[in-house]
Parts: sequence; C-alpha cells; structure tokens
Amino acid sequence: MNHFTRKDIDEMEKIFRINLINSVSGIKPGNLIGTQTNEGNLNLAIFSSVLHLGSNPPYLGFICRPNEKVKRDTYDNILSTGYYTINHIQESFVENAHFTSAKFEPHVSEFERCSLTPEFKDEFPAPFVMESKIKLGLKFVEEIPIKINGTKMIIGEIVHLFVDKEIVDDKGNIRLDLVSNIGIAGLNSYYKISKIKEYPYARPHELPTFS
Amino acid sequence: MNHFTRKDIDEMEKIFRINLINSVSGIKPGNLIGTQTNEGNLNLAIFSSVLHLGSNPPYLGFICRPNEKVKRDTYDNILSTGYYTINHIQESFVENAHFTSAKFEPHVSEFERCSLTPEFKDEFPAPFVMESKIKLGLKFVEEIPIKINGTKMIIGEIVHLFVDKEIVDDKGNIRLDLVSNIGIAGLNSYYKISKIKEYPYARPHELPTFS
Repeated sequence: MNHFTRKDIDEMEKIFRINLINSVSGIKPGNLIGTQTNEGNLNLAIFSSVLHLGSNPPYLGFICRPNEKVKRDTYDNILSTGYYTINHIQESFVENAHFTSAKFEPHVSEFERCSLTPEFKDEFPAPFVMESKIKLGLKFVEEIPIKINGTKMIIGEIVHLFVDKEIVDDKGNIRLDLVSNIGIAGLNSYYKISKIKEYPYARPHELPTFS
Repeated sequence: MNHFTRKDIDEMEKIFRINLINSVSGIKPGNLIGTQTNEGNLNLAIFSSVLHLGSNPPYLGFICRPNEKVKRDTYDNILSTGYYTINHIQESFVENAHFTSAKFEPHVSEFERCSLTPEFKDEFPAPFVMESKIKLGLKFVEEIPIKINGTKMIIGEIVHLFVDKEIVDDKGNIRLDLVSNIGIAGLNSYYKISKIKEYPYARPHELPTFS
C-alpha cells in the first residue's frame, strides 16, 4: 500500500493534491443547484457536497467554497431570494452537468450554455432542471461558517420533492439506479451506480454469520 | 412524477419518511470510523456523511446525530483522544460494515462482533480496518454545532493516507471502483459503482457540442 504522510500531502504538486484529497472521502452525490437573481436571471451549478442533515424536519446541507476572490452566484442568489432547487444528475445529461462548472460571464445562464431546460413548478421561486428525475425545492434556513478554511455550510429545508413514482419502494427508499443517477469521485470522474444489497435494521441479537 | 409537498412529508408514516428523506441527497460514501477509548477499548461505526471540506490543509467532515438520548461512542472517543480513522467500505465486507450499526452493549467491540480486524499502524492512536483498501488517519480539529436540529459536524485533518498504489492515477485521482468501493442510499441500501467518464476542467470557451 502507498502511505502518504501529512508531510507528503503538504508537499505534493498542487493539482495532484487537489485530485487526491477530493477523492479520499469516497463516492459523492452529483447534484445541480438551480437559483435565480431577484431580476430573474437563472443560474445552475454542479455540487458534489449535498448532505442529509435530518428527516423531521427535512434538512439538507451543502458546502460553499470561500467567496472573497471568486463570485459565487449560487450562494448570492440563495441568500438574496431565500430559495433554491437541488436536482439529481442522471447519466443522460452528465456532460451537460459537468460543464456548468465553467466560469461563464455574469448574466450568462448555464441552462442555456449547457443545454439544460429550466422548469418552473408550483410557483416555486427557483428553476428546476426539467431533465432531472429526482428534484427538490428548498427554502434557505441557515448559513454555518466553517472558519478554519473559509468555507460554509448552507442549510435548507425541503418544501417540494418531485420523484418518479416507480422508483420509490413501499418502505420509502428511492432506487437511485433505476433512473441512472450518477456519483462523483474527485472533481471530474463520474460513476454509474447499481444496487447490490439491502440489509435490515441492525440489532445486536440478530447478527448474521459473517463469512 | 410523484409530488410530495412539505405537508405530505410532515404527515408521512415515520419510517417511510426516514427512508425517503435519507435517500433524497443522492448516493453517499460508505465509511467505517475507528476510534478507541483512553483505556484502549476499540470502537467501529458506519457513517454515510463523510464530506470533503478542503485540500490544503486536507480537511474532512462528518455529521454526528444528537447525543442527549443515545450514547455516541465515536463522538465521545474522538473528543477524548483527539484521533480517529476513516476506512472506505468495499463490497467484500459490506455486510460486516452494515452491522456495526447495531447498538451493542458498552465495551463490546464492533470489530470483534462484526468480524473485522483492527490494525495499528505508525503508532497512530486509533484502529484502522485491516480489510479496507483506502484508509485515513485523522486528527480532530473542530466540532461545529448545527443548532437547528442538534446534530454537529466533526472536522478532522488528514495525517495519514493509506491507499492501494495501483488505484491512484498520474493526476492523483483514486479509482474507487477498482477496489470495489460501495456507495450507500438511504439507511441500508448498498450500491456498486463503476466509472463511466472523466471530463476536463470546464472552460467557457471549450464547451463540447451537447447532444
């Protein structure tokens, strides 16, 4: 096995380190976050840091990088309008989704440049991605600063959930593979997922015999 | 498409809601966190919330649920010793990993009950999982309370990284599928992952022609 100490990591070539350390948390969800400005300009950006925080009330978080040097449209729009959408990425539009990360000129909509279709539903004040088969409307709740490196966690509560009927089983589980959801490793590697197994709620006196 | 409003979600049967809302962030990484008490009792627990926070310095976070009602050994051990390991789960021991979530009696080691092998390396003061092919040693940095629901984010810095040599490419990317890493959906569904595509750094003037 390769052993990288902290010293090795600190002394790595920058791009190698970014790729390596972005890979070491494991597979990540691929989501597009849709927002708009108060003037109605649409924005769409890919994120691999969407995270479950709680079911009741239903809270999700995601990580925003520091915005001192680079303008962060998603962050600015969420704070000024209070609303955003989270749209799962499927294999059919993974390339489109990836290229939303390009730094386009202000007021250029990633929807248009990356051939994705904004969709407004139920008077929700942020654009969904029409192509996506699992999509959520969220209301901004709180921003938590992570002071050690200037990132922050944005927390929202789910107010709408749209999901293909046939992929929710009778226990509430969403079969992510049946709509070809993708996962992300590092910054730019995309993975297909396929269900292998489901295990029951674990109880100490009902352990299987491990092979 | 099914449309669940916030009212629908709030009124759902509890287990259905837990499964559904735990699925809606997308695929999640599967990791085992290894700790020990100051007395040397070993603990191992499965987490699906490990998250990249930064590469330089290399920070990872994960979410801990409230610990007023239930004892959280992982959390207590990290705060008292300052160290922990994060071990990627592979398909060969996914069942063992799942059952570490059973609420065993205090001082029962999940390593022993779930047939996983503790491994001590480089005098690091927390147990790694011998079976895992990607494993990290972390030093506790900070606890960030998420007051709206009593959860917290635990942040650590990577001090050791052990990874199979042949799965790190020349750009630093780890090929998670080559060691059969798994992903988690909801609370108890496990997914195989396989790489489909890698795209270059996105630049506005180098967009592909989208199909």
